[in-house]
Amino acid sequence: MNNADCIFCKIINGDIPSYKIYEDEFTYAFLDIASDVYGHTLVIPKNHAENIFDVSIEDLNHTMSTVKKIAEHYKSIFAGGVNIINCSDKVAEQSVFHLHFHIYPRTENDGLKVFPAIDKQEIDFKDCQEKLKIKH
Amino acid sequence: MNNADCIFCKIINGDIPSYKIYEDEFTYAFLDIASDVYGHTLVIPKNHAENIFDVSIEDLNHTMSTVKKIAEHYKSIFAGGVNIINCSDKVAEQSVFHLHFHIYPRTENDGLKVFPAIDKQEIDFKDCQEKLKIKH
Repeated sequence: MNNADCIFCKIINGDIPSYKIYEDEFTYAFLDIASDVYGHTLVIPKNHAENIFDVSIEDLNHTMSTVKKIAEHYKSIFAGGVNIINCSDKVAEQSVFHLHFHIYPRTENDGLKVFPAIDKQEIDFKDCQEKLKIKH
Repeated sequence: MNNADCIFCKIINGDIPSYKIYEDEFTYAFLDIASDVYGHTLVIPKNHAENIFDVSIEDLNHTMSTVKKIAEHYKSIFAGGVNIINCSDKVAEQSVFHLHFHIYPRTENDGLKVFPAIDKQEIDFKDCQEKLKIKH
């Protein structure tokens, strides 16, 4: 399933060029050219989905298999680790509305910092749990 | 499979208390009490794995199903979005070596910023692609 207005669908189709890293029947991975992180890679399902909320479990599984494959590949190349990041919804800093997982190759003293600096706040965890827990 | 020295395995077993959000046969989700982000949740597989590199595909799929379930639940509660973050390896800021996905509930103007600020650098994407691509 393809969305004619989606820039990532156009990349999958080859209508827009990309620096492809990997492709299989269900997924596609390419370099994020808007990035300042060396090796910053995006992994996407070929079936169009906006984000984590509407993707099918099958396409999510295919996508994560490719994320794992690339993570292992980069670990062997960089002798380091990876961060995997997804933004789902505009308020979560998603800018292209085709589900994508960012992979950052990480190495010792690379200067990156993936956890955001935020103000210290007191959280009532018991109250938070009551509000958020999923009842069976 | 349980690792006797692992703090998250002890949380799953109930040997260490936690603010549980969700549990099923294969996964467990609880609040990150070291966090300053309201609703910051960790999703883990019950079978011990260190990170993305050694987790089985089956446990990864179970874990991501729970990530998606909680993401949808939080979207409905917060009327917002989510970030999903994984750190695999010490150099990628992993601190507990039992695979976990962080979920941040996100809302308009919450002051969070998930993409790290880094220095602008010129990347030769063609060269990067050659170095990183997976050959079939």
